[in-house]
Amino acid sequence: MEASGKSRLTAEQEAEIAALRDQRAETARPVAPGLEEILYKPLPVLDHGFVRVIDYMGTDDAVVQAARVSYGRGTKRVQEDRGLINYLLRHWHTTPFEMAEIKLHVKLPIFVARQWIRHRMASVNEYSARYSVLDREFYIPEPNHLAAQSASNRQGRGDILEGAEAEEVLNLLRNDSMQAYDHYALMLNEGDGDARREDRQGLARELARMNLPLNFYTQWYWKADLHNFMGFLRLRADPHAQYEIRAYADVMIDILKRWVPVTHEAFLEHRMGAAQLSATAVKAIRRMIDGESVTAETSGLTKREWVELCAVLERDA
Amino acid sequence: MEASGKSRLTAEQEAEIAALRDQRAETARPVAPGLEEILYKPLPVLDHGFVRVIDYMGTDDAVVQAARVSYGRGTKRVQEDRGLINYLLRHWHTTPFEMAEIKLHVKLPIFVARQWIRHRMASVNEYSARYSVLDREFYIPEPNHLAAQSASNRQGRGDILEGAEAEEVLNLLRNDSMQAYDHYALMLNEGDGDARREDRQGLARELARMNLPLNFYTQWYWKADLHNFMGFLRLRADPHAQYEIRAYADVMIDILKRWVPVTHEAFLEHRMGAAQLSATAVKAIRRMIDGESVTAETSGLTKREWVELCAVLERDA
Amino acid sequence: MEASGKSRLTAEQEAEIAALRDQRAETARPVAPGLEEILYKPLPVLDHGFVRVIDYMGTDDAVVQAARVSYGRGTKRVQEDRGLINYLLRHWHTTPFEMAEIKLHVKLPIFVARQWIRHRMASVNEYSARYSVLDREFYIPEPNHLAAQSASNRQGRGDILEGAEAEEVLNLLRNDSMQAYDHYALMLNEGDGDARREDRQGLARELARMNLPLNFYTQWYWKADLHNFMGFLRLRADPHAQYEIRAYADVMIDILKRWVPVTHEAFLEHRMGAAQLSATAVKAIRRMIDGESVTAETSGLTKREWVELCAVLERDA
Amino acid sequence: MEASGKSRLTAEQEAEIAALRDQRAETARPVAPGLEEILYKPLPVLDHGFVRVIDYMGTDDAVVQAARVSYGRGTKRVQEDRGLINYLLRHWHTTPFEMAEIKLHVKLPIFVARQWIRHRMASVNEYSARYSVLDREFYIPEPNHLAAQSASNRQGRGDILEGAEAEEVLNLLRNDSMQAYDHYALMLNEGDGDARREDRQGLARELARMNLPLNFYTQWYWKADLHNFMGFLRLRADPHAQYEIRAYADVMIDILKRWVPVTHEAFLEHRMGAAQLSATAVKAIRRMIDGESVTAETSGLTKREWVELCAVLERDA
Repeated sequence: MEASGKSRLTAEQEAEIAALRDQRAETARPVAPGLEEILYKPLPVLDHGFVRVIDYMGTDDAVVQAARVSYGRGTKRVQEDRGLINYLLRHWHTTPFEMAEIKLHVKLPIFVARQWIRHRMASVNEYSARYSVLDREFYIPEPNHLAAQSASNRQGRGDILEGAEAEEVLNLLRNDSMQAYDHYALMLNEGDGDARREDRQGLARELARMNLPLNFYTQWYWKADLHNFMGFLRLRADPHAQYEIRAYADVMIDILKRWVPVTHEAFLEHRMGAAQLSATAVKAIRRMIDGESVTAETSGLTKREWVELCAVLERDA
Repeated sequence: MEASGKSRLTAEQEAEIAALRDQRAETARPVAPGLEEILYKPLPVLDHGFVRVIDYMGTDDAVVQAARVSYGRGTKRVQEDRGLINYLLRHWHTTPFEMAEIKLHVKLPIFVARQWIRHRMASVNEYSARYSVLDREFYIPEPNHLAAQSASNRQGRGDILEGAEAEEVLNLLRNDSMQAYDHYALMLNEGDGDARREDRQGLARELARMNLPLNFYTQWYWKADLHNFMGFLRLRADPHAQYEIRAYADVMIDILKRWVPVTHEAFLEHRMGAAQLSATAVKAIRRMIDGESVTAETSGLTKREWVELCAVLERDA
Repeated sequence: MEASGKSRLTAEQEAEIAALRDQRAETARPVAPGLEEILYKPLPVLDHGFVRVIDYMGTDDAVVQAARVSYGRGTKRVQEDRGLINYLLRHWHTTPFEMAEIKLHVKLPIFVARQWIRHRMASVNEYSARYSVLDREFYIPEPNHLAAQSASNRQGRGDILEGAEAEEVLNLLRNDSMQAYDHYALMLNEGDGDARREDRQGLARELARMNLPLNFYTQWYWKADLHNFMGFLRLRADPHAQYEIRAYADVMIDILKRWVPVTHEAFLEHRMGAAQLSATAVKAIRRMIDGESVTAETSGLTKREWVELCAVLERDA
Repeated sequence: MEASGKSRLTAEQEAEIAALRDQRAETARPVAPGLEEILYKPLPVLDHGFVRVIDYMGTDDAVVQAARVSYGRGTKRVQEDRGLINYLLRHWHTTPFEMAEIKLHVKLPIFVARQWIRHRMASVNEYSARYSVLDREFYIPEPNHLAAQSASNRQGRGDILEGAEAEEVLNLLRNDSMQAYDHYALMLNEGDGDARREDRQGLARELARMNLPLNFYTQWYWKADLHNFMGFLRLRADPHAQYEIRAYADVMIDILKRWVPVTHEAFLEHRMGAAQLSATAVKAIRRMIDGESVTAETSGLTKREWVELCAVLERDA
């Protein structure tokens, strides 16, 4: 996790962040050393985006403490805590994971923000384009992420576009974005000197913004508890998630590791790497283990479920 | 509330809606006659949007029944029910209002959808532009809603733009929208006949959509309980809300009236028309009633609060 | 599901319910015929409890419609709807299941209510013992549910108590409950005639209730959407749930079947009968299918996880 | 706010808390000095209860930062921050207050816990009486809180009980509680030595607990954001709230003051001391200020609303 992203911020913003990082104080609260290392620093995502950890509350201990409703830290050994955290996650005892909290500052394209906001169990304060003028920053995919529509999956990507088609698409995206912003600025008429036309009032910001396309960047403060943070990651770090939001989720999994290393490990084991099998799939597996040769036809599963089961078992469908 | 909006739907959609409306069945559930009249019909909003009531559960009686936790309808008279509903709303006893529910189908510009979705205590299923191609429909303000940035309020609108500036703005918005959609279609390359270029794969839908500006229409199913429905209306029918979302809220207040007429009346009295006074403002008012001549300076309020209080009292600040 | 429970209600309550059931009206909304049959009727649970369906919104079609964001019912065949509902549930696409809603009236012991209320994504209006006097109704387990503490599971039940111990326990529970209620009534001093002592004021209801034990019955209106209704059932119909709340969940699964038969079937397949396997468990299973003899030691699982896996596979641990 | 409450904890618990308080570390996170002073300490409430602050995230600055979506602390002066926080609270811009979080450990009677849990936008982990044995601790009101049922308000308290009635009530409450616990222990049969009868299995904990009355103490970890923390206080520190939960809310208002002093002040001004006036009440007030003599009859208000308005204005109804 490279933590510079300096070019994404102005010198003034850099200075503000440095000042925050220097300002260290004593606390009797639990501290997550791995997270303190990167506190406030922008972790770059996509071409102009970032994730910054702004604040946090609690560590792996908070989960354990809540599950035991104990007065202090208790005298349990680390090994027992690890076992408890795995047990809780495995059995969907989710409330202890609500006892730790994290707050991020995220810069992201609007179409990613629209997916992100669907996670309702979180708090959000977004930069207001009714109140302020947006920057000239928009997302253009790197060539290796410029994918064709998938032929097999109506909601996915297929091959990478190449040659003239790729070039044309990138040009269209870039030119339309630049033109949209030029016209946004023109309608606002808030420029200095020559850019400002004295005979014009300037369109209201809340209206002018509607000319900007969905690849423009917005930013927000986003706060969630550990349970909902993992819920976000489970869906958005999944291979079926759109690449652009996955890029954020991947950085956030690194953050999870620095924050709550034991929970992170359990999360990989019981969420990201886990498989859910339907009642019929379980029956098919029992028969396979008994040595029976089960096929799509004899499994009792639909074609689609059979393909999914074979993927779990790493065998040909 | 004019309820045609026929031109907003295809003939096929019209036929589907007519079929639903014809399909009447018996139920022992409570029925809201005013809402049955407009069930499924698109109520037009803005230039291409609409609100359709798709389903509902409960009436004013549901609020009363929950507040009393009674077995049946009880024998209370209408007048007592009205008093109870007013009492509950006045004293923020909000849970009985959670006992009625409504589901809408809404077509709305994306920038309006982005404000709307901030109301988290609701359920949403949005049309997926990862999965399907969006229509060529975008919002262009009517001339009398094309307002300049407010000079006094950083988050508001000022005078209506006129003459050359208005014309230029409308042209920019319209042309950029049409061009953005043309390029969206070009990148998708899903057209028929000549429009489809055989040597092109077509960009993935989930990527191509990022070229569309925020004034394009999306649509969703949206479901909320009566308490959260009123919470939405209180904020979005407020004069400080952006006009474009207020246009939806105004139609939804008409829906509220058809659905729960007693609650609707109490809502106007205790929410929309009500005023909240700070501790200091209450003290100022007591002095005024006692005949004292209170001024901004002697009120103990900030300048801004004084202006707000004078607005409530309908006197000059 | 026997639907009488007549003895649980007064004659007046019975009459109110009968009046509600007789009052049939026309609606253009979707109707769930199976649910209409039992609307308002108390379905008995435990010795004095019940569940009554008071209202509902939507059917299986509501899930399909929201997933497709369609204008009407669409022309898809039943088989495709079934496949879609199974797909949604299997892949945790939960939002379409939020589009149907149900409201229950439940009478239940307070210690069950305390578990139930932990499901926060629901609306509740409880009978107020600050405002009204509670009835003399308390839960006494049937002899075959009077279980010893489990020796192996700190949070479970073991053998059924028998003989003198069972008798003693039942007597203690019954006598303490009766005495607690007698003293509650005495402190309230609200009785008629001789029971009322004129020289006493009577303790406030909000204080007197604290003398009642947790097996006393309370009642509430409870409303949840289909997604959260199934979330409740998954946890509370589970064999690890306490018997007394499972008794309610079992009745509610019958309600689910009457309400949304397709979703009910998918729920059994993908929730109640499904198994979740950790990353390590998946690896162990792949080896088993390849014919390898995997043991607790070579599986990489903890002892407890191994036992859980063997239970899924129906083999000896 | 006296912060000893030593007798409420065992020596072992005291030692655990002292160890936590001694364990100070450096952090770059914002620190609330007033809260650090009392971190982990039990603040006594009622006869055996307490509130302990276990952790927190953010200070007044978190509210300001989120409202401005800034990169650092910004250069605004304290006076502007104060103005902003007051503005946000006055206009119900609630999301910035979600950006700070607090976690408490609370010991409280079960009947108080049942009111408390109705605040759903919070996280809770309660001590499990399925898993562990409850202590012999129950709430007995102090004589000056032993109130009669209010004659005028069906949901309130009237005069303080005195003499023989008070004595009788206290004896009933105390004796029933002690007997209930004795029988609870007897049914559990988990005692040492003589207290344990070898021929008895002992009733399952999840069943035995149902014999305990609602005045027994439970405990939980409870976590909420600043917005919901204030929502809790507004309802529970209100004079209409039951005294026993108000006792907790009062201590929590002191905590609010130590945590976010600027928000605390704004909370008193715009929530606790504020008044909400209906549309009709506003009209009546305008007439009063104009010198008109408005009466209950000419006000247009119901009798009850008129009494409430007179209370706000501190005049006779």
